[in-house]
Amino acid sequence: MGQTQRSPLAAETLARLGEVSTATVTMQLLKRGLRNVYMRGPKPFRPEQPRLVGEAYTLRFIPMREDLSRVEVLGEPDYAPRKVIEATPPGQILVIDARGERAAGTVGDILVARLKERGVAGIVTDGAVRDGADVAAIDFPIFCTGTAAPASLNLHFGADHDCPIGCGGVAVLPGDVIVGDGDGVVVVPRALADEIAADGFEQELLESFLKSRIEAGHPVIGTYPPNEETRRAYEAWRRAREG
Amino acid sequence: MGQTQRSPLAAETLARLGEVSTATVTMQLLKRGLRNVYMRGPKPFRPEQPRLVGEAYTLRFIPMREDLSRVEVLGEPDYAPRKVIEATPPGQILVIDARGERAAGTVGDILVARLKERGVAGIVTDGAVRDGADVAAIDFPIFCTGTAAPASLNLHFGADHDCPIGCGGVAVLPGDVIVGDGDGVVVVPRALADEIAADGFEQELLESFLKSRIEAGHPVIGTYPPNEETRRAYEAWRRAREG
Amino acid sequence: MGQTQRSPLAAETLARLGEVSTATVTMQLLKRGLRNVYMRGPKPFRPEQPRLVGEAYTLRFIPMREDLSRVEVLGEPDYAPRKVIEATPPGQILVIDARGERAAGTVGDILVARLKERGVAGIVTDGAVRDGADVAAIDFPIFCTGTAAPASLNLHFGADHDCPIGCGGVAVLPGDVIVGDGDGVVVVPRALADEIAADGFEQELLESFLKSRIEAGHPVIGTYPPNEETRRAYEAWRRAREG
Amino acid sequence: MGQTQRSPLAAETLARLGEVSTATVTMQLLKRGLRNVYMRGPKPFRPEQPRLVGEAYTLRFIPMREDLSRVEVLGEPDYAPRKVIEATPPGQILVIDARGERAAGTVGDILVARLKERGVAGIVTDGAVRDGADVAAIDFPIFCTGTAAPASLNLHFGADHDCPIGCGGVAVLPGDVIVGDGDGVVVVPRALADEIAADGFEQELLESFLKSRIEAGHPVIGTYPPNEETRRAYEAWRRAREG
Amino acid sequence: MGQTQRSPLAAETLARLGEVSTATVTMQLLKRGLRNVYMRGPKPFRPEQPRLVGEAYTLRFIPMREDLSRVEVLGEPDYAPRKVIEATPPGQILVIDARGERAAGTVGDILVARLKERGVAGIVTDGAVRDGADVAAIDFPIFCTGTAAPASLNLHFGADHDCPIGCGGVAVLPGDVIVGDGDGVVVVPRALADEIAADGFEQELLESFLKSRIEAGHPVIGTYPPNEETRRAYEAWRRAREG
Amino acid sequence: MGQTQRSPLAAETLARLGEVSTATVTMQLLKRGLRNVYMRGPKPFRPEQPRLVGEAYTLRFIPMREDLSRVEVLGEPDYAPRKVIEATPPGQILVIDARGERAAGTVGDILVARLKERGVAGIVTDGAVRDGADVAAIDFPIFCTGTAAPASLNLHFGADHDCPIGCGGVAVLPGDVIVGDGDGVVVVPRALADEIAADGFEQELLESFLKSRIEAGHPVIGTYPPNEETRRAYEAWRRAREG
Repeated sequence: MGQTQRSPLAAETLARLGEVSTATVTMQLLKRGLRNVYMRGPKPFRPEQPRLVGEAYTLRFIPMREDLSRVEVLGEPDYAPRKVIEATPPGQILVIDARGERAAGTVGDILVARLKERGVAGIVTDGAVRDGADVAAIDFPIFCTGTAAPASLNLHFGADHDCPIGCGGVAVLPGDVIVGDGDGVVVVPRALADEIAADGFEQELLESFLKSRIEAGHPVIGTYPPNEETRRAYEAWRRAREG
Repeated sequence: MGQTQRSPLAAETLARLGEVSTATVTMQLLKRGLRNVYMRGPKPFRPEQPRLVGEAYTLRFIPMREDLSRVEVLGEPDYAPRKVIEATPPGQILVIDARGERAAGTVGDILVARLKERGVAGIVTDGAVRDGADVAAIDFPIFCTGTAAPASLNLHFGADHDCPIGCGGVAVLPGDVIVGDGDGVVVVPRALADEIAADGFEQELLESFLKSRIEAGHPVIGTYPPNEETRRAYEAWRRAREG
Repeated sequence: MGQTQRSPLAAETLARLGEVSTATVTMQLLKRGLRNVYMRGPKPFRPEQPRLVGEAYTLRFIPMREDLSRVEVLGEPDYAPRKVIEATPPGQILVIDARGERAAGTVGDILVARLKERGVAGIVTDGAVRDGADVAAIDFPIFCTGTAAPASLNLHFGADHDCPIGCGGVAVLPGDVIVGDGDGVVVVPRALADEIAADGFEQELLESFLKSRIEAGHPVIGTYPPNEETRRAYEAWRRAREG
Repeated sequence: MGQTQRSPLAAETLARLGEVSTATVTMQLLKRGLRNVYMRGPKPFRPEQPRLVGEAYTLRFIPMREDLSRVEVLGEPDYAPRKVIEATPPGQILVIDARGERAAGTVGDILVARLKERGVAGIVTDGAVRDGADVAAIDFPIFCTGTAAPASLNLHFGADHDCPIGCGGVAVLPGDVIVGDGDGVVVVPRALADEIAADGFEQELLESFLKSRIEAGHPVIGTYPPNEETRRAYEAWRRAREG
Repeated sequence: MGQTQRSPLAAETLARLGEVSTATVTMQLLKRGLRNVYMRGPKPFRPEQPRLVGEAYTLRFIPMREDLSRVEVLGEPDYAPRKVIEATPPGQILVIDARGERAAGTVGDILVARLKERGVAGIVTDGAVRDGADVAAIDFPIFCTGTAAPASLNLHFGADHDCPIGCGGVAVLPGDVIVGDGDGVVVVPRALADEIAADGFEQELLESFLKSRIEAGHPVIGTYPPNEETRRAYEAWRRAREG
Repeated sequence: MGQTQRSPLAAETLARLGEVSTATVTMQLLKRGLRNVYMRGPKPFRPEQPRLVGEAYTLRFIPMREDLSRVEVLGEPDYAPRKVIEATPPGQILVIDARGERAAGTVGDILVARLKERGVAGIVTDGAVRDGADVAAIDFPIFCTGTAAPASLNLHFGADHDCPIGCGGVAVLPGDVIVGDGDGVVVVPRALADEIAADGFEQELLESFLKSRIEAGHPVIGTYPPNEETRRAYEAWRRAREG
């Protein structure tokens, strides 16, 4: 499932997903019958950090075992958690299956500094970040479950990378599209990215109109979702706007 | 259990509860043998939001089932989660049983805008809010468990409203009095509201005196709770103050 | 296990631990085979509060039972939760086993004011704080799991003090050294405090060098952890620095 | 949502569901996109008890509150948990939303004796049963999470009956069809009952053939699920069997 | 809180509690406002084991820490988990606070054999038992949460004994009365033991009559709980029975 | 990490582990500093099933996603959960990472029948088994968390096989040795298998002697663990026995 075989995503798809909220993305996925796409746990590490959109590059932890999770493995060039720091392609997102474990960090300030240096787009993990104060000083988007002092070896062993994982209870395949904002992180299956981007963009336009109607005093029923009359008003507004 | 049958709460009761902390309210309820009155989960959505006091109007979710939780129900005028947006009486609080589920929003910015427009006093939910950034821009008190991108239909089905519910592990009957501040949310059974308000007011007065004693160097033992001597000093202080 | 039998900690140990991050402390403990030393739950109550280092003085709660957890016990001079407010030695840290229970406060503003007055160094609890707004107004380091309105009697009974406890899933003996910062709280067994302080101090120096290398564009592999060459560069840097 | 409005289920539907395993029923529902239909928790109370099939009659608990959950309510004729003992129609199943709480019983031997006497088909609850030894002596199918000594009032208040509920994390509407066997309990939405019964019956026939093929040494791949060849063999077997 | 200071329990109290179900005991405690008395977790280890009644002698574990939970401590005569094997008085019950941890055993067959030899009445633990097959071969009542292979040192450190503990979420003081049967384990505060025994005995008599009424076809309402008429019938039945 | 590269385990190692209890195996691992080796969850499916010892062959599930977990994948020859049924080598154990999820089956009677037919030694899973009654009729050792009606596709997607996994919170590498008995399942790292087998065998011999001493009335202290005198008695007993 290496990334090389995949045809590239349309630039417009990523651009549009960069303007669509995760609330809208999950609604578009729900309309297609996909419910299990929103990660439990990961939230923006810094309140002010930018939205995050990009392809997933994955890292997988399994439970700590004392004979495996020795400090010495950190110096082995093939140890997955160190290898991904150099292997995640620029512009992609490192997505870490940390088994939902909040009491260990999966990255600290040195690794984050290197990822930023390499042009990686961001990190998503269902675990924590360590050296939180130093990490927060780096302008780099991270979605995680908070901070924790221990290294990942305290509770995990890095088993694999660039493979299917679960993160926050959601399946992530390498190359799936990740969208993160203040409401958290959603996974868009790669094959659906184009249509979710297009329809999500439309939905946001409609909802901006509907919200203005609500603010003008219209009741929810008939407005949101729109009935026939509201929909006609929207079409008129839209034509005027585009016109 | 409709609200119409209930005799109105004394204005003074609501006014006093508006000045009494939830810490004090729970202590007054504990003195009467009520322990299971504090909600697990809901906290102020915005740190700076005002305290919240008012009568409960309820909404109840049950678990999602794919044949029930279809996007189409949002357009049905009788679907409870939309109906309550127009039905919650002005001045009352919409209290939502979201089954403690943090991975779905129970309201978004459009519904919040409408509730505010209608004069509803606030929202309490043991679930999340979606479109968090837009909701935070509305000056409206919400107690919830954070943000989540998915709509309630992703995990719930709106089953009923204006009925007994559980919220944050606490029973809420329509018309019970809700008090929320930075420490969270407490439910005051309607029948006890008057006396909790009166005695809570007294307790706060006493504690402000006791705290001044502690700050003046008195030890905890003998001061908090007050022994005979401290109580006499309090009575004197109080007479002087009122005098 | 009273504190009196213990020989005092070296001043240098506490001073150095005051400069070493919990991330570093847990790594030093991991190198010695200690993994279960990081508390699940407690985080800084105020984002800006200072780091916390000191010896542990303990308080232990057991589950509430209605015949034990009566409001009247608060006035009994031997009730452990009140006794410790006067008994925790100045400079030490009150560490409270609140059974990981987030729905009750273990201290409120009056008790915190008294602890500060007495020169206690801080509080660590795997429970909550009540009267959160008033507590936040006191300049006193507290590590806890948030705020909750109810008093500890709502869910607990104070069983004992100055005894071995569990806090956040970690064993704490009276006299163990507690280190808390933005990443949370770690327990250093008293017998290991000197060497953890010394080696942690060294590790921080090395890592500040390694981070500068990463920021200068070196890859993680070979740098962090350092290979032979990086280590030589570090030694040179260090000699130059000290020279 | 009273039961009286509903047209009766076909006798053949209930008869067939009585012969189809819950494993098969959940697979048929999965094929129709319904995943959230299997209850977490309820298992047969007695290993040897018969399968259970019938329409749901519901009871709903909310969290205990000391002013509501008084022993005296048991004597009030309108208290829902007592009312349902006389109101559940013969042949139907009492399905109890006990909030997944295993530390309180929802029925004891006296209530079970009365339900049996009245011809009720069985009980499903995501809570426990009390007086377990005496209940086990009654030949009556119960699906629950085990035994617990306390009465429901210890942790619950009976809020309502004959209304939509959640049980074991699954939505149950009055009149839905419940199927229980050794693998647990599944809810069949009433509108789907006929087709699930018919197709489930077919699936069981096919699988009995496939299992005989596996036992005859065929590999899983090509057999289960059947490829073209296996399916032809099945059709032949079936024609031969039907004669 | 040593056992020696306590005046002995009346023999009749223990005898009566030996005939009263835990369901009845919890109801009697509920009538007195005590709800948090039933342990979550412990169930009979062998289905056929006898009921268990006696005074509590306690053992307390705290979380494992690698420097404390060394195999060598098992040979130290003061290590609490070994000490209690010789110190629990004959006729009393060893009640173990295992922090609700199901993945470690708290006793194995050798320790159980010794406790039986010494005349201890039984064991209650919210943890597991190891060497389960060998333990099951010993005729000795144990209430626990199942079996687990690891020794207690794997996850715990034995901190103390003959002290207040929590077990299964319930406070247990040394000398409290423990009652265990098929529904699990309930703690009777020592000061209430006499009246719970007496009133529980009465309740069982009444309920045996009420059950016979239900079996004779009476409806629940009016019978259980008894209305005036039923109560008169009971009094007559009782007089006849005693007469 | 394919199995082919590994040198075979000594036959004596497997034979001895077949006679050593999991309680003893975990103690031997604890003595070597390995604590996280005992699986949470899996227990014998049938009480009477034999002990299980063998090498691990692994299968890994990730969370269900509606676009991946389609019923159609069951017919794809490369779908891992079907592939392993034919690929697990005879004599080895299929170990399934089911993410600790108890509400879906990971195998049913048809797959179990095929595994038995192929000479696979057994199954270990931290999930459930479906078609429980039919599976129980097959004489084949399974360690799991119970029964559940839904297929694995209801909650999972089969991601990979013959790779490192977590099962019951424990790391399992292909080729590690699994030991299961009534106390559950323990993982022995392959590199330690020989010494654990040898020393475990010794420990069992010693403990059989110590138990006889306890049964003869010796106190625990001095006997278990043995002091100098007890150890001498053991050596004498052993010499006599081997004599």
